[in-house]
Amino acid sequence: MSLRLGPGGEFDRIRAITAALGERAAGLGDDCALLPAAAGSLAVSTDTSVEGVHFRLDWIGLREAGGRAAAAALSDLAAEGADAAGVLAAVVVPRGSSESELVELMLGVGDAAAAAGARVVGGDLTQADGGWTIGVTVLGWAATPVTRAGAGPSDGIWVTGTLGGARAALEAWLRGAVPEAAAREVFARPVPRLAAGRWLASHGARAMLDLSDGLAGDADHLAAASGVALELELELVPVHPSAIAEARRLDLPVQQFAAEGGEDYELLVALPPEFAEAESREFERACGLALTRIGRAERGRGVHARLAGRPLALRGFDHFR
Amino acid sequence: MSLRLGPGGEFDRIRAITAALGERAAGLGDDCALLPAAAGSLAVSTDTSVEGVHFRLDWIGLREAGGRAAAAALSDLAAEGADAAGVLAAVVVPRGSSESELVELMLGVGDAAAAAGARVVGGDLTQADGGWTIGVTVLGWAATPVTRAGAGPSDGIWVTGTLGGARAALEAWLRGAVPEAAAREVFARPVPRLAAGRWLASHGARAMLDLSDGLAGDADHLAAASGVALELELELVPVHPSAIAEARRLDLPVQQFAAEGGEDYELLVALPPEFAEAESREFERACGLALTRIGRAERGRGVHARLAGRPLALRGFDHFR
Repeated sequence: MSLRLGPGGEFDRIRAITAALGERAAGLGDDCALLPAAAGSLAVSTDTSVEGVHFRLDWIGLREAGGRAAAAALSDLAAEGADAAGVLAAVVVPRGSSESELVELMLGVGDAAAAAGARVVGGDLTQADGGWTIGVTVLGWAATPVTRAGAGPSDGIWVTGTLGGARAALEAWLRGAVPEAAAREVFARPVPRLAAGRWLASHGARAMLDLSDGLAGDADHLAAASGVALELELELVPVHPSAIAEARRLDLPVQQFAAEGGEDYELLVALPPEFAEAESREFERACGLALTRIGRAERGRGVHARLAGRPLALRGFDHFR
Repeated sequence: MSLRLGPGGEFDRIRAITAALGERAAGLGDDCALLPAAAGSLAVSTDTSVEGVHFRLDWIGLREAGGRAAAAALSDLAAEGADAAGVLAAVVVPRGSSESELVELMLGVGDAAAAAGARVVGGDLTQADGGWTIGVTVLGWAATPVTRAGAGPSDGIWVTGTLGGARAALEAWLRGAVPEAAAREVFARPVPRLAAGRWLASHGARAMLDLSDGLAGDADHLAAASGVALELELELVPVHPSAIAEARRLDLPVQQFAAEGGEDYELLVALPPEFAEAESREFERACGLALTRIGRAERGRGVHARLAGRPLALRGFDHFR
C-alpha cells in the first residue's frame, strides 16, 4: 500500500505504521477516517492506557501493550452488543523512543483490530516527556444496542468466561514473581467478547457491561443504571485456575479474589428469567465460552454479595480512590 | 439531568461533569456512546493535546485548554466537509488535581462541542503523574466528504480567514510578553470552520485540509495526497493584524511568519479553476469569513512558494523534528 503524505518526521512514522500494518489499516493520513453508514446505531467508545498506571513494560512488551489497549476499548463495543468496524489510536510517544518501538506498539493495536474484524482507520501522534499513553477509540454498529440500564427484577445475572486471571498475573508481578503462563495471557492478551456480546444482544440481554474494573467494581454500575439490586452468590463465580494459588497467598477466598480483580474483560449480563441452562449451553456452543449464572436482580438497590451464607462487602478498583 | 451510576471517585467526577455540562452532554456513563446513523459517510478524527507541548497553563486557563483541544479535533471534521455530531473526551488527570479543575476543563470541551452543534457523548478518565492530557475524538456526517487527495492541475488554492494570529500569541508568550488580545483569542479560542467546510464541500471543493501545522507544514500534505505541485504566491496570504509586529521582531516578512505559524485552524482548499472572486464573495456572505486565493495547483510535486518574485523555502511545524 502506498500512502501519499508530505514530508516530516510525523509522516515518516505514519508511513512506517501503514507499511507494517498492511491490511490491518485503511485510509490513514487524512483529516478524518471515513466509514460508510451501516444499519443500526453507531456505538463509540474511547479508552486510555497509561504506562505505569495500566501496564508496565517490564511486565509486557510494547506490542502487547498496544493490543491490550485496543482490546480494552473493543470490549466496550462487545458490552453494547455491537460489532467492531474501526479503531483509532492516539499515541503519546516518549521523547527519545524509536520509530520501531512505535511500530511495534501499533502492530499490537492492528492485531487486536484485525482479530475483532476491524481495521485501524485513524489516529494521532504526539511526542512528549514521560511514558507511553495510548488512547484508543473504537467504532461499531449495533442492531440492538444493550446499555447498562435495562435489567429488571428477577432477571438472571450471568458472566462469561472466568474471572481472576488478570489479577493473578498482576499479583505475581507485584511480588516480583513470574506469573503462570495462562494468567499472563489473560493480562497481556485479553480477548474482547464481541461475538458473545452480539449473541447475547440478539438473545434477549436486557443490560450488559464489561468487567474492566472487576465484578466488584462494575456490578454496582449495572445495578445503579438499571435501578435494581443485584443478589450475587459468590460460590457461583467461575474462577480462573491461576487465581487459586494467588488467592491463597493473600489469604482470600478465591471467589472474592476473582470478584475483586479487574481487567478480565468478561461480560456481565442480565438475561430474562426464562433464559436457563439450556440457553447457556447453546451460547457455549456458539461462542466457545462459558456462560455462568451468578445471581439475580431484585427490587431495591446496590450489590449484595454472599459467600458461605454470609454477606461480603466487595471492593472494586477505582483510579480515583 | 440525573445520571444513574454506581459509587466510586471516578463516577463522582462523571456525575459532576454531567451536572456542569447540562444540555452540552448526552448519554455519558455507559460502555459506549450511541448515535443514530445518518445519511452520508461517518467522519471520525482523534486529536491529543498535551500540557507543555500544545499549551501551557500559565498562558491559558483549563477551560480554554479543553475548548482548544476540542476545537482542534472539530477542525478535522470541518476539513472533511462534515458536520459535528458527537465529541468524546479522554482525559488524563494529574494526580492531586481537583474535581473542579476537571469540570472546568470539561466545560471548555462542552462549550466547543455546543458551538459546533454537537454534544459530549462519552469519554474516559485516568489519573496519572504528569500534566493534563486531553484526547478528543469527534464524529460527524459528511454528505460529500472532501479528502486531501482530489486536487487537479489548474485548481485554485484558497485559504479561509487570516493566518499568523496563533503564532503571534505564541511568540509573545515565548519572549515573556502579553500577547495582543486578538492574537490571544485565536490561540486560546480557535473556531473550527465547520459551516465553511460544508459550504466549500457543497460548492465543488476538490481537496481540503485544516492548517493545524500551518500553511508551510500542511500544504505539502495536500500536494502529496493529490499528486500535484502547489504554486503559492505568499504576497496573497491573508495575515492576522497581530502578526505584523511579531514578524518585525523576528525580522521575517509577515507573510512568511504567517505561513510558517501553526494552529490557526483555517481551511486550505483546492477549488476548480472556474471558482472565482464572485463565488468567494458568496462564500463570505454565507460564512462571515474571508476566502482568499493564494495560488494554484500544477502538474508536478511539492510546494513552491514565492515572495517578492523569489522562491522561498518554508519551514513547517513537526512534533517529531
